[in-house]
Amino acid sequence: MDHLVEKTIRKEKIFSGKVVQLYVEDVQLPNGKTSKREVIKHPGAVAIIPITKEGKLVLVRQYRKALERVLVEIPAGKLEKGEEPLATAQRELEEETGCRAQSMRHIVSFYTSPGFADELIHLYMAEGLEKLEDAVSLDEDEFVDILEVTLEEALEMLEKREIYDAKTAYALQYLQLRRVLGEENA
Amino acid sequence: MDHLVEKTIRKEKIFSGKVVQLYVEDVQLPNGKTSKREVIKHPGAVAIIPITKEGKLVLVRQYRKALERVLVEIPAGKLEKGEEPLATAQRELEEETGCRAQSMRHIVSFYTSPGFADELIHLYMAEGLEKLEDAVSLDEDEFVDILEVTLEEALEMLEKREIYDAKTAYALQYLQLRRVLGEENA
Repeated sequence: MDHLVEKTIRKEKIFSGKVVQLYVEDVQLPNGKTSKREVIKHPGAVAIIPITKEGKLVLVRQYRKALERVLVEIPAGKLEKGEEPLATAQRELEEETGCRAQSMRHIVSFYTSPGFADELIHLYMAEGLEKLEDAVSLDEDEFVDILEVTLEEALEMLEKREIYDAKTAYALQYLQLRRVLGEENA
Repeated sequence: MDHLVEKTIRKEKIFSGKVVQLYVEDVQLPNGKTSKREVIKHPGAVAIIPITKEGKLVLVRQYRKALERVLVEIPAGKLEKGEEPLATAQRELEEETGCRAQSMRHIVSFYTSPGFADELIHLYMAEGLEKLEDAVSLDEDEFVDILEVTLEEALEMLEKREIYDAKTAYALQYLQLRRVLGEENA
């Protein structure tokens, strides 16, 4: 066993909600002493970098209650129970932007906040977007504006902190790197 | 007021711990209907990309209770009350790696999980590391291994999911982009 492992002595469920569960755990540290850990359980999520046929990036503006402000982000959504991340990505892209992609490719997955939460995000690149006539609608408690921007416009939004979250910052850097390396299809 | 704003009708504090606070909020949606939001409050954090004089990246291996596994990450730590992020970054770099940096520069800040938490991470680039004789020690419940790796070695760890979190993935992409653009000092 790894010498850094913290052994669980006791685990108490504090809260179980629509999205998150909260546990407080008593752990035994590598030096034998004890401590407490607060742990948020989350179903995981997907995020999509949607690129139109004209090479523009599709973003969503939405209100984030945790921040009490509107953010501009790449489309994203929680995994439903038993759903494959790729299926979630296709569904969320359609719900949030009304588009379907000709190709959808997994780029990377990462934990967003390993210090206190187990949320894992799977990031996909979606290219060749087509507007759907019969697009499925958003969840009944979701309200978003859709934007189509160039990479330069998105980088300006990052500068102004209209874009201000990790997955979208990662996505913009990914597109910059792809451009510099000349790997764009456009 | 922005047409996407969700108005708080009622706010209940469910939990207040060492690290996080959990609230459940009843909100009025843009269409007048009501819904519930689960919100985690977090003090915010810093993360540091520490580069040695030889151009290597310093990483920390640590156990993450929320994931029940060891992760390799760039050094990071929570903001103390009233502490400036730059001071936190200098302190955490010293505590986790035993080094001080000749230069420390803010790169970007981002929210890690805007869907349910307000954790904001401030990311710094630390160059010209010097080993301290009288390094301050870790918090009493922190245990880490220190690694010095090349960017290629770090990218392999990302591939193998030993590196598996958003801030470290962002940091590696940042170093790749800097290398491609020829902006390295080394």
